[in-house]
Amino acid sequence: MSVERILATYRIAAPAADIEARARALAVEQSVEMPLEAIRDARVRDEVVATVERILPSPARGRGAGGEGAFEVTLGLAVGTTGHEASQLANMLFGNCSLQPEVELVDADFPPGFADAFPGPEFGIAGLRAMLAAPDRPLTCTALKPQGSTLDHLVHLARTFALAGVDVVKDDHGLANQASCPFAARVPAVQQAVAEANRETGGATLYAPTLSGDPRALAGQLQVARDCGLRIALVAPMLVGLPVFVELRRESGLALLAHPALAGAARIAPALLLGKLFRLFGADATIFPNHGGRFSYGRDTCLAIAAASRDAWEGLAPILPVPAGGMGVERVPEMIADYGRDTMLLIGGGLLVAGDRLAQRSREFVEKVRRS
Amino acid sequence: MSVERILATYRIAAPAADIEARARALAVEQSVEMPLEAIRDARVRDEVVATVERILPSPARGRGAGGEGAFEVTLGLAVGTTGHEASQLANMLFGNCSLQPEVELVDADFPPGFADAFPGPEFGIAGLRAMLAAPDRPLTCTALKPQGSTLDHLVHLARTFALAGVDVVKDDHGLANQASCPFAARVPAVQQAVAEANRETGGATLYAPTLSGDPRALAGQLQVARDCGLRIALVAPMLVGLPVFVELRRESGLALLAHPALAGAARIAPALLLGKLFRLFGADATIFPNHGGRFSYGRDTCLAIAAASRDAWEGLAPILPVPAGGMGVERVPEMIADYGRDTMLLIGGGLLVAGDRLAQRSREFVEKVRRS
Repeated sequence: MSVERILATYRIAAPAADIEARARALAVEQSVEMPLEAIRDARVRDEVVATVERILPSPARGRGAGGEGAFEVTLGLAVGTTGHEASQLANMLFGNCSLQPEVELVDADFPPGFADAFPGPEFGIAGLRAMLAAPDRPLTCTALKPQGSTLDHLVHLARTFALAGVDVVKDDHGLANQASCPFAARVPAVQQAVAEANRETGGATLYAPTLSGDPRALAGQLQVARDCGLRIALVAPMLVGLPVFVELRRESGLALLAHPALAGAARIAPALLLGKLFRLFGADATIFPNHGGRFSYGRDTCLAIAAASRDAWEGLAPILPVPAGGMGVERVPEMIADYGRDTMLLIGGGLLVAGDRLAQRSREFVEKVRRS
Repeated sequence: MSVERILATYRIAAPAADIEARARALAVEQSVEMPLEAIRDARVRDEVVATVERILPSPARGRGAGGEGAFEVTLGLAVGTTGHEASQLANMLFGNCSLQPEVELVDADFPPGFADAFPGPEFGIAGLRAMLAAPDRPLTCTALKPQGSTLDHLVHLARTFALAGVDVVKDDHGLANQASCPFAARVPAVQQAVAEANRETGGATLYAPTLSGDPRALAGQLQVARDCGLRIALVAPMLVGLPVFVELRRESGLALLAHPALAGAARIAPALLLGKLFRLFGADATIFPNHGGRFSYGRDTCLAIAAASRDAWEGLAPILPVPAGGMGVERVPEMIADYGRDTMLLIGGGLLVAGDRLAQRSREFVEKVRRS
């Protein structure tokens, strides 16, 4: 009987003469992690040890000095080794080899039905569009900044953004539960300011605060969220832990906006981690640093993230790509041309630099997107 | 009034002409994440924005092509921004800049008293030595492998290792809660086998199973652990999440053996993450890939991890460095010469290759260490 396998592709820098042995060693590292000759159980050798499925020259990187090439090695990881759970899936995909600098994780293809064990997005693009009463147009997002601000300042910003009609006003990812503006004081006050603005405008702006901390802290934050009627939250899966993110998906009832902090996605392909895996684990929208901003992802990488967010994948709802990271209002048309209408545009600092003209700049952002 | 700051040092690849501006941009990225000119509150500019404390040429890397140099940039991160909590501390140290491939996190120096907000190790070296009735000599550790084995096989291995007198028998880091050998069946059976062997030999071998999964799964595993009298567990902080690791330290009552899976410690200095931070968050022992094995850390990196594990640090107990990753019995004298007596040597596959001579090889390992 053949074993179901995840096809995990790694880019390995190694001399051509060594790549077959290096690929076999990686297959051992990412499965049984012991010398094969010491495994006597034929079932373990056949059904647990990872297989080397394919070795190809890598298109992504030229040959380095010293005769080193780059190769794309595809392993077959037995699905049973993942325990059908997020932390162990991450462990099998990139646990030990995350410590080997010559190895990058490029992609993973999951066999049919594998996703059934994971929650996937609860709302996805359609659910978020329904919440925001925006069935078709591109969506807008901005951030409450900076951390360290007084509650009054953050409430003022939130009201300004909501009156301007920004769809989602999120906490800056650095706004957590600091003494300067604790979660339990901030979230109800900002939520109320947004609700009041919505009543005045007839709008449907949502506030997405940052959930962070240990499971006990998260439980307290979820209670605050329920008490004030929150619908959506910002969570960095790598900061709280991948399995915690899954549990938040299963138990919070909130739409989840995933943030890439600490994702170190220079060595795990951004499209796999921020797109495919965060979606599998339950994100409804995924923030990533757009090309040409403060980060160095290229356009191809960004489009690959967007594709991984929205490509058909069994029963998993498509989720919103959220390009961000130093964007300004002048880039709206280009971003919509790049990413299409099922996109949420996130501009934070690019609005705040407007100073006294913040309300006007925010309306420009909203209008520019609405006219698209 | 001066603000307490964490001194975080980054290695940045940049042309010399750009490094001052790059350093200032990093200071903004890792604190307020918005243009400074848009911040009107002088308190935020003075007490929240990170400062550039120092820029030095990096000793660790020569100049690259195209006039790029490497620099060590030390930022002063205001302690208040961390919220005195693990996920937000990680966010401030390396959240967004983990996505910038030209930036590595080299080290962090915390101001006096900062560690008080974190649990630190509960047992440390002295506590583990007391549990193991081994007040002075170097310690031994091995692993139950491979995943996919039957329960009978793992119980047999555990009994063999315990009879040989290995101090800690841990689960392989790939043994989680798979259908092939679920946690709830495996852990009581292995724990009983080890206890029986201890009764026969008068020894004090401890079994350290892998804790993994989401907080609900962890709670179930802790209940199993309590029911069968476990004293120690293996946890990969980056797989379960850093704040979850802290919560396990606070609530499990178990000694914690930290595993580096998914730590991606090619871009966060291993001594900082596996040594200093895992210790701050509550590890009692930290596993790392020793030089000359399957991983590429150099000897200096490994000695730096050991130093970070044991150096004096206010009230934080020193913890055991655990060199591992393809070690064999023949390297015991060299490893003890490198790391000294307050060390736990971990040999897994290097014992299992002995096949029928496993018991004898395990005794050799134990004897070699005990005679040191």
